[in-house]
Amino acid sequence: MDHLDRLIELALDEDLGAAGDVTTSALVPPELRGTGTLLAKEPMVLAGLDAFARVFRRVDPRCTVEFLVPDGARVEAGTLVARLQGPLRGLLIAERTALNLMQRACGIATLSAEAADKVKGTKLKVLDTRKTAPGMRGLEKASVRAGGASNHRFGLFDGVLIKDNHIAAVGGSIRTALERARAHAPRLVKIEIEVTNLDQLREAIDAGADVVMLDNMDDALLREAVAIAGGKVPLEASGGITLERLPRLADIGVDFVSMGALTHSARAMDLSLNLDTSAS
Amino acid sequence: MDHLDRLIELALDEDLGAAGDVTTSALVPPELRGTGTLLAKEPMVLAGLDAFARVFRRVDPRCTVEFLVPDGARVEAGTLVARLQGPLRGLLIAERTALNLMQRACGIATLSAEAADKVKGTKLKVLDTRKTAPGMRGLEKASVRAGGASNHRFGLFDGVLIKDNHIAAVGGSIRTALERARAHAPRLVKIEIEVTNLDQLREAIDAGADVVMLDNMDDALLREAVAIAGGKVPLEASGGITLERLPRLADIGVDFVSMGALTHSARAMDLSLNLDTSAS
Amino acid sequence: MDHLDRLIELALDEDLGAAGDVTTSALVPPELRGTGTLLAKEPMVLAGLDAFARVFRRVDPRCTVEFLVPDGARVEAGTLVARLQGPLRGLLIAERTALNLMQRACGIATLSAEAADKVKGTKLKVLDTRKTAPGMRGLEKASVRAGGASNHRFGLFDGVLIKDNHIAAVGGSIRTALERARAHAPRLVKIEIEVTNLDQLREAIDAGADVVMLDNMDDALLREAVAIAGGKVPLEASGGITLERLPRLADIGVDFVSMGALTHSARAMDLSLNLDTSAS
Amino acid sequence: MDHLDRLIELALDEDLGAAGDVTTSALVPPELRGTGTLLAKEPMVLAGLDAFARVFRRVDPRCTVEFLVPDGARVEAGTLVARLQGPLRGLLIAERTALNLMQRACGIATLSAEAADKVKGTKLKVLDTRKTAPGMRGLEKASVRAGGASNHRFGLFDGVLIKDNHIAAVGGSIRTALERARAHAPRLVKIEIEVTNLDQLREAIDAGADVVMLDNMDDALLREAVAIAGGKVPLEASGGITLERLPRLADIGVDFVSMGALTHSARAMDLSLNLDTSAS
Amino acid sequence: MDHLDRLIELALDEDLGAAGDVTTSALVPPELRGTGTLLAKEPMVLAGLDAFARVFRRVDPRCTVEFLVPDGARVEAGTLVARLQGPLRGLLIAERTALNLMQRACGIATLSAEAADKVKGTKLKVLDTRKTAPGMRGLEKASVRAGGASNHRFGLFDGVLIKDNHIAAVGGSIRTALERARAHAPRLVKIEIEVTNLDQLREAIDAGADVVMLDNMDDALLREAVAIAGGKVPLEASGGITLERLPRLADIGVDFVSMGALTHSARAMDLSLNLDTSAS
Amino acid sequence: MDHLDRLIELALDEDLGAAGDVTTSALVPPELRGTGTLLAKEPMVLAGLDAFARVFRRVDPRCTVEFLVPDGARVEAGTLVARLQGPLRGLLIAERTALNLMQRACGIATLSAEAADKVKGTKLKVLDTRKTAPGMRGLEKASVRAGGASNHRFGLFDGVLIKDNHIAAVGGSIRTALERARAHAPRLVKIEIEVTNLDQLREAIDAGADVVMLDNMDDALLREAVAIAGGKVPLEASGGITLERLPRLADIGVDFVSMGALTHSARAMDLSLNLDTSAS
Repeated sequence: MDHLDRLIELALDEDLGAAGDVTTSALVPPELRGTGTLLAKEPMVLAGLDAFARVFRRVDPRCTVEFLVPDGARVEAGTLVARLQGPLRGLLIAERTALNLMQRACGIATLSAEAADKVKGTKLKVLDTRKTAPGMRGLEKASVRAGGASNHRFGLFDGVLIKDNHIAAVGGSIRTALERARAHAPRLVKIEIEVTNLDQLREAIDAGADVVMLDNMDDALLREAVAIAGGKVPLEASGGITLERLPRLADIGVDFVSMGALTHSARAMDLSLNLDTSAS
Repeated sequence: MDHLDRLIELALDEDLGAAGDVTTSALVPPELRGTGTLLAKEPMVLAGLDAFARVFRRVDPRCTVEFLVPDGARVEAGTLVARLQGPLRGLLIAERTALNLMQRACGIATLSAEAADKVKGTKLKVLDTRKTAPGMRGLEKASVRAGGASNHRFGLFDGVLIKDNHIAAVGGSIRTALERARAHAPRLVKIEIEVTNLDQLREAIDAGADVVMLDNMDDALLREAVAIAGGKVPLEASGGITLERLPRLADIGVDFVSMGALTHSARAMDLSLNLDTSAS
Repeated sequence: MDHLDRLIELALDEDLGAAGDVTTSALVPPELRGTGTLLAKEPMVLAGLDAFARVFRRVDPRCTVEFLVPDGARVEAGTLVARLQGPLRGLLIAERTALNLMQRACGIATLSAEAADKVKGTKLKVLDTRKTAPGMRGLEKASVRAGGASNHRFGLFDGVLIKDNHIAAVGGSIRTALERARAHAPRLVKIEIEVTNLDQLREAIDAGADVVMLDNMDDALLREAVAIAGGKVPLEASGGITLERLPRLADIGVDFVSMGALTHSARAMDLSLNLDTSAS
Repeated sequence: MDHLDRLIELALDEDLGAAGDVTTSALVPPELRGTGTLLAKEPMVLAGLDAFARVFRRVDPRCTVEFLVPDGARVEAGTLVARLQGPLRGLLIAERTALNLMQRACGIATLSAEAADKVKGTKLKVLDTRKTAPGMRGLEKASVRAGGASNHRFGLFDGVLIKDNHIAAVGGSIRTALERARAHAPRLVKIEIEVTNLDQLREAIDAGADVVMLDNMDDALLREAVAIAGGKVPLEASGGITLERLPRLADIGVDFVSMGALTHSARAMDLSLNLDTSAS
Repeated sequence: MDHLDRLIELALDEDLGAAGDVTTSALVPPELRGTGTLLAKEPMVLAGLDAFARVFRRVDPRCTVEFLVPDGARVEAGTLVARLQGPLRGLLIAERTALNLMQRACGIATLSAEAADKVKGTKLKVLDTRKTAPGMRGLEKASVRAGGASNHRFGLFDGVLIKDNHIAAVGGSIRTALERARAHAPRLVKIEIEVTNLDQLREAIDAGADVVMLDNMDDALLREAVAIAGGKVPLEASGGITLERLPRLADIGVDFVSMGALTHSARAMDLSLNLDTSAS
Repeated sequence: MDHLDRLIELALDEDLGAAGDVTTSALVPPELRGTGTLLAKEPMVLAGLDAFARVFRRVDPRCTVEFLVPDGARVEAGTLVARLQGPLRGLLIAERTALNLMQRACGIATLSAEAADKVKGTKLKVLDTRKTAPGMRGLEKASVRAGGASNHRFGLFDGVLIKDNHIAAVGGSIRTALERARAHAPRLVKIEIEVTNLDQLREAIDAGADVVMLDNMDDALLREAVAIAGGKVPLEASGGITLERLPRLADIGVDFVSMGALTHSARAMDLSLNLDTSAS
């Protein structure tokens, strides 16, 4: 069972418990079938389609979901996104959990697209962070990609990111931190280091960092950093990033900018599932 | 293992996998201890303290978290919220997952408080919905209460809520739906029914609904509904609710108003965890 | 995986372990197919059909079970209840676990029917309790309904039931307990309170209890309680209830009577599964 | 997590779900402590003490249970069995699940003792079967031993028991079945075979069965079987066994008798847990 | 989920984590299908076919594996063992985990066959031990059988094996140990006891052991032991057993010899999976 | 529960099932305590100490293990490695599973040390592969490090490794494969590509591979490859690597060599656990 299936099982467990959907049990005969249409109620970028469909199949394998537009599509308000059919009980039980996943995914994709649009045509890439809803890392990272932004490392395992506490732990030297990371880190992961001033940046470049993260620097400082790096090492701006600031950062010439807000503060998109009892 | 522990295990699994935190493994000796302070970086209502602490204890039972203010406290920017100590490795590994949980919880509590403040001194209660992040139902519902708003039913099992699809499934009659629910639903749960016009409201009251949800009605219609109900049955306004509209709804005299936004669109609060290598 | 599937997995785990059915492995070739008939060996009310079939499907998805009579049917000794077919190994491995579930379910349904029959035509409803076999709550509650009796709350989450310890915890006042429950309990659950004398009953009614449980009262006292309640609040008699006493309780006029024995002391019904090697 | 812990987790899950004990949450402050006494309300043989205590510790590790009498003790009505203390919330939440396990365990131990007493002083051993409540195999088998009766094999893995279907699967020959079992079964398990008539018994003895089960034979037939076996192989009587018949079976001279009723039809014993808010 | 499925899930979890196969995600379109052939690259005895196929089905149920030779077959270098087809992504993701299982299984089967061949035509049976890779007990025991050797007990539950620590625990007497085991062990398991000298052997035979294990005895001592046992009880030689010594042990006349090396020190067989993008 | 704990739970489950250690239950009183010493019976490099200790603590938290030498230590035959104490039942039950883990870990560490020693003082690093026992990836990789060799990527998630099937999937071009990987792979992982001839090597270097794996090349070809690479990109030799060939590879000048045998074909080291009933 993969991580998304574990999350869906957990979500259904908390919504149903052992007692189940008491309204549906009381009112909907098990043999009744239904159909449904999923509509976008506002303009958005779609994401989370597979997650949406999995919830229905898990509740009742006889439920089917047919998507009319793919992940990553930019749709207008009123767009018909999917058609569903299956036992009405299953459709009703799965509805809320499926929407909770997909509305959040679409919210992230839409905000990511807004960010990516700000830097279109430049070399600047907008990255997400590890500030994701617990259990939804994979889905949220896929939603960021669906919106046209890029992923930072997935977790603590697929990239070295040296922060102030790590540097302090080896005695305060950026060089020592980079050397020790190089010696002990997995062979195929790159080493990024976070710096807060230009001296640290110089030391990091000098000691061979693969990527440098510039923490909470203003535009002037970032501009100096770009000059110092001179294209020898990719630079990532991080901290205090707003949508408005993105074009300026592209102009300054950093390579990456990471924004926690893409995942931790996206609002849910308005999607509506209309169900009907099917004629059958 | 309760539902929150399952979510924390899932979150740590996706962040660590089998390979773990490669940066910390490379740079932080296992015997190094650390201390930390958790600061509120903006005004907020606190929530999720227990979840925050559990993450650290799960990563390493030797980590301790001491809270200086309780769930539900309204704090200013700069407030010291908690002190931590334990093996530095554990503190670093747990940090992001713990913050992801707590920042979201505080965001919900803060938004809930804002909503609750709008109707303070009136009988109107602001309710959450089932539009919660998958796996976080319990934590999000507690955050709503921490902010001073109230909980709607927890899941599909602890309350009957009859919607249009349920009414259609029994042939379209509100009375039939209510009678069948009364006959088959668990003995100690109340029966709420969603209506979209005043005729349905009259039929619902007549047939003995315990609570009536007024779906997407404008202020004028809600006012008529309150007159019709005449205090015989509690009324809940739902759909298209904004913070701005809340005082008007209180004035109109409905008993409850439910807002999906409390949970599905709260932004993460800015909390900062500062770690230090401890002297010892 | 729902709660019944978890129970079935646990039951098969304890019966098979990692080493499996050593008799069947040694003697039954994997390609051999079998058929079976499930017979009621004594009069009974059927229940647990789905649970019975799930065990076979879990052991081997190629096993099929066709039921000839539904849950809730009252059958005579000798009734053919189901036909099975599938790989003989699977049929043999699943047999005992499937029967263990179904014999217990039928026992509960049969005892529940006996109780329900005693009060047929009256308004008195016979309720179960939470005294169920661990892990079998859902199956046992469904068996009670199959027999024609009714369910009390499912668990600790779908109804407030205030007992002496809860009253003591708030300082001893029934009114305080009811008020606090009203303020803090989920919005759609009713509040029942247990009383042991008529003064408490009066206080509970006065303070607005939704249901009152009369604990261990004799017939005379119950009669007085019914007079006091005067139809304003439903009454539940509990404690020391026997089948023989049920008609008298109906006559006295309480609304509900709860019996732990329905689930905790029903004996297993005699069902027999006859397997044959099929000609194939 | 062992099988009993898995069962306890499942039982608490179905009783609490994600929403928890809404009565206790509303009325019992988390800091309140309680004490309790567990009383036997009728004469019984004790069993399930460890299971009882584990439920409390799992709900809250601060709960402690001190037993005053051990598993297997025969106690009178009114005996004080255990003292408990801990947070009152934990005691209240665990109470019902713990009692459900222990009352069933004591019921089985008490019935087993009644059976064992019938054959006291003879060589006849009363055995249980695999007819146990799903998930409770280990606890029920321990309860049988606590009552003084003996265990048949635990599951399908720790003994070969050849029944009619197995014999049919190898072509109908008892000798072939025994030879094949000998060749393929695990090296340290014995081979028992079920026979329904005396010819089969002779063939089974001749072919070297380790134990022979005599299925549904009347007393006269059993007597002949004992004469035929002549002590060369242990005999087990099975099917249609009542408590009343046990002394006669001892007199006839079979070695074992197995009774499904020991586990599948024992009634729950009456145990009562009295809780108090502790002074502290 | 059985034990092998749990192991496969664990193995895929550690290989994929939540982030998945980043190479395949980047380069292989999801709709691309592939075919594969599994070749033996050296002479070997096949085992683990079902485990191999299960990994592919678990990764993607659309993957199919068709075996051309069965478990237990002795094949030459170059033998085509299986054909696979399915989505190329699934084939690539499952490949390594499936091979890891099967190469180990074939290694054990091949070494077991080598051992079994050494004693062919004699009554001596070569047994495995519990020295298996954690989680692979069932697969490794099946591989031993596929190679033509035999299984000792599966685990701690399906046979009594009394060692020096057990004898010490009852006060040092072999007779006491055997009697207590007889009294308390499950009814259908045999009792084996480990002895280190001939006096202990005599005592064990005298006290009725079902099997005696001769621990670390040289050939001369084993010969004496066989004479003492005189066929009254089966003897197992254990400790310091090499392939070379097996024919001598057969000649000496012990009944069983157990070799930990069959499972703990078999090397992986060379099997090669060649995948192709299918024309489709 | 981390991956190693899941493996230990699985291993104990298969060894104990629901029925447990029947020998120990019959013969060892629960209150008896024991002590133990763990001895190396041959020269070896130690690894797996934590895994060894965890098994005992999981079986019974009262068991303690004190190590006298650390992971990575090279010890002589006869070295006292650890002292244990705890309830004798727990020590006996955990013994085999703990040894199975540690003997395998030490086998891998010892073989890894042998390989590392062959290239000591050169820049050549000996790497492991993903050919590990299912469920033991983390333990086996740590054992490789304990022996002084290095780890290749942990799983499919922490490094891109492009093989022939991936190249074919993008149409056969090495350049296309590298470009697509660069565009789609996680930002902090490096890209390694497998080549089988020198033209492919040139193309890979030209297209900017981070590392190149030279598949199954003989010494002459490898020498040419080193010349072509000229230090611009690290080279890894893979396929057909033996211990004997390692010094030659170091001399040739490749940077890495990967050996599946380190993990898939190490034999178990001889470690012996001697238990005693403790005086107390």
